[in-house]
Amino acid sequence: MKFTEEDQESALSANYTIRLVENWPELSSKEKVDLFNSLPHGEAEELFYSLSAEDQWELLALLAPYERRHWLRSLPPDDLADLVQAAPEDQKYDILRSLDDKRSGEVMALLAYAEDEAGGLMTPLFLRLKPDMTMEQAIHYLRLQVNSPVGGSGYAYVLDPDQVLVGVISLKELLLAPKTARIQDIMSTKLTMLTETIDQEDVGRIFAESGLHALPVVDHDGRMKGVVTIDDAVEAVAEEATEDIQKMGGMEALEHPYLKVSFFEMIRKRIGWLAILFVGETLTASAMSYYEEHISKVVALALFIPLIISSGGNSGSQASTLIIRALALKEIRLKDWKMVFLRELASGLTFGLVLSLICLLRIVFWPSAQTIYGDHYLLIGIVVSLSVAGVVIWGTVTGAMLPFILRGVGLDPASASTPFVATLVDVTGVTIYFSIAALILGGSLL
Amino acid sequence: MKFTEEDQESALSANYTIRLVENWPELSSKEKVDLFNSLPHGEAEELFYSLSAEDQWELLALLAPYERRHWLRSLPPDDLADLVQAAPEDQKYDILRSLDDKRSGEVMALLAYAEDEAGGLMTPLFLRLKPDMTMEQAIHYLRLQVNSPVGGSGYAYVLDPDQVLVGVISLKELLLAPKTARIQDIMSTKLTMLTETIDQEDVGRIFAESGLHALPVVDHDGRMKGVVTIDDAVEAVAEEATEDIQKMGGMEALEHPYLKVSFFEMIRKRIGWLAILFVGETLTASAMSYYEEHISKVVALALFIPLIISSGGNSGSQASTLIIRALALKEIRLKDWKMVFLRELASGLTFGLVLSLICLLRIVFWPSAQTIYGDHYLLIGIVVSLSVAGVVIWGTVTGAMLPFILRGVGLDPASASTPFVATLVDVTGVTIYFSIAALILGGSLL
Repeated sequence: MKFTEEDQESALSANYTIRLVENWPELSSKEKVDLFNSLPHGEAEELFYSLSAEDQWELLALLAPYERRHWLRSLPPDDLADLVQAAPEDQKYDILRSLDDKRSGEVMALLAYAEDEAGGLMTPLFLRLKPDMTMEQAIHYLRLQVNSPVGGSGYAYVLDPDQVLVGVISLKELLLAPKTARIQDIMSTKLTMLTETIDQEDVGRIFAESGLHALPVVDHDGRMKGVVTIDDAVEAVAEEATEDIQKMGGMEALEHPYLKVSFFEMIRKRIGWLAILFVGETLTASAMSYYEEHISKVVALALFIPLIISSGGNSGSQASTLIIRALALKEIRLKDWKMVFLRELASGLTFGLVLSLICLLRIVFWPSAQTIYGDHYLLIGIVVSLSVAGVVIWGTVTGAMLPFILRGVGLDPASASTPFVATLVDVTGVTIYFSIAALILGGSLL
Repeated sequence: MKFTEEDQESALSANYTIRLVENWPELSSKEKVDLFNSLPHGEAEELFYSLSAEDQWELLALLAPYERRHWLRSLPPDDLADLVQAAPEDQKYDILRSLDDKRSGEVMALLAYAEDEAGGLMTPLFLRLKPDMTMEQAIHYLRLQVNSPVGGSGYAYVLDPDQVLVGVISLKELLLAPKTARIQDIMSTKLTMLTETIDQEDVGRIFAESGLHALPVVDHDGRMKGVVTIDDAVEAVAEEATEDIQKMGGMEALEHPYLKVSFFEMIRKRIGWLAILFVGETLTASAMSYYEEHISKVVALALFIPLIISSGGNSGSQASTLIIRALALKEIRLKDWKMVFLRELASGLTFGLVLSLICLLRIVFWPSAQTIYGDHYLLIGIVVSLSVAGVVIWGTVTGAMLPFILRGVGLDPASASTPFVATLVDVTGVTIYFSIAALILGGSLL
């Protein structure tokens, strides 16, 4: 087992399955089935379990019915629920029907949860113990449970007769405790647990804070419903970030990877915001029509419109991006808005000062300034620089406050997308610019 | 243990520590120390371990020296390494000096790794076994190791005499296997492992694919160096997403949470891109100066400048955001660029068609169209609509291809930030607009 320096990525493929999964999307349907059928059972199993729910369903649909049933029955309930969600509408029922009653009941119960709640992430299978067992009894009891696919969470949960969760014990503790000790004396009663409806965005954070690899999910009476293992949380964290990033880019979040989304679905998710923002942006034309006379008198003013509005857009994008992410990670809370406001106001002032200085130097010292911008190039330079300062301050503060406002009224702060902030700032930016122009050039040029 | 429907968030605080950690940033230094000292040892411990490295250091700095030493020595090497990195430059050495030689050696070894490599995430402590042990011997051997803080990874690793990793066994298997079985007959030899220098971006993905809760880190000769547990991966996934989001917002990635970054550090991270983009955007003024005469003849053309360039900016932002994230998640690869190009070209054509149609209707059917835009409002409407179509197609394709180009030349695709794409598209957008105007209005108005 030797690795070469250059060969980073293939170092991983000491595990054959991972290499297969990486190349999987590139294979044709026929190649997938042939490869899958050619693998020894153990490897086929490993490959199957490491595929995404979509890929699992794609493969199953290609297999013979009896094989499909075999693979379906080998999956634990939470993965089955994902698979049912990934399957086409008209085949969901077929999947459920091919399971035994107990399993299909478990899967239906999981499907009742929203996909992005703790309940939708959990598996209802876990190792359970009773408080008054000895270690020896406990190990015997676990051996009986271990034939069912209980997952590798590494903990056993201690339930009272009403199924209320009263303690947890790690398998390591179980392994190393004296044989005669009782569960209730060794179990930990300090429990971090999740309610069924907690959002998956919070689940990732709670895992990171707790340092545990599995968290129990309980109902409102403290009765244990299942376990969320941390691998589901890793996926959930990445998924939440992807959703936020897509919203911040000015589109609806996609439900599948880029190449798995059909062309028309992709158009549908993107055109909405583009059209809304476009209509919003037409307001700039309306706003500017009030200043048409100014422009016809001093055409040089028109040359700086893109510069002005994009400065506002850029500083606004930056601020909103920063605040949306900090809110998502709970680094800041709704009630911190005042502190953030002051801080971003100070940042905006600094940015405005620096950029307007660059702007002034650029206009005044440009070799051909006088030819391009006319005799009053200095006056125009002052108007543009002041406008840049005003628009940048306005953009920074607006971009920073908009996510708070959205969160405050119960919307997703990530909807304060970069294009949304930019469009909002554009309309006001134009007004700021021409108001300053009217004020300064009023006596002379306009 | 009853939870009310409304009381989602506090349902978690069945675990007292998590509640403490959530309120922690709001406490004054004095309150932190007082609270910490007032807790029973077990709870103080739990609180301390769940704090971030920054918060741990802040607290330690306030404690008496002998107490500080006690807490430092209780930390496992990977957390110590994080703490040393969080501490001010002049105190890093003091921390290392207060550890025993073995531990400070381990910490120094970890500090040699970059923070965002697998080596920087791992702990060098893990449960180890030899291949020829029986289960009974193994459990005895583990009891000897378990006094040191070996972490709860849930696996024991089987090493040959050269420390080369040859197998892995879960504690569950160890717990449930017959006493006389030998490790080598039960251990799994299909290993997923990480090399020391693999990037943390990939670590999260490999965890999700492997479904394991801990992965061994090996050097180039397959010798075991340590273990990355999945909780570190959860944090790494969130961290990588945050870095990408901040870069995509047009700034340098922050190293600490929003409220922990000093004002001047924050300015420094943000002003650079703002200034560069501002200077880039001044090219729009230069480009437009070529068309100054056009504008003076048909002032109405100026009114649509913001609409045109923002349409390009918005469609470009959307496309670049989508592609950057898909590249980061390995949903698409560099070699997929041609397929993405065709797809985004088709998307751009669709968006361009829809938006230019909206545009034409908006200009022609606006009640006061003739008053605002002059007698030739229809001709101007056609110019603007065609320009919108052109700019949107150009923006979509540019936004989608830029991340590929950056990745191709070895830069981070996330640097194709929304403001960067918008600025790039602005300059060309102005040129597209006035070229179309010159072409269509050439005979009549210009």
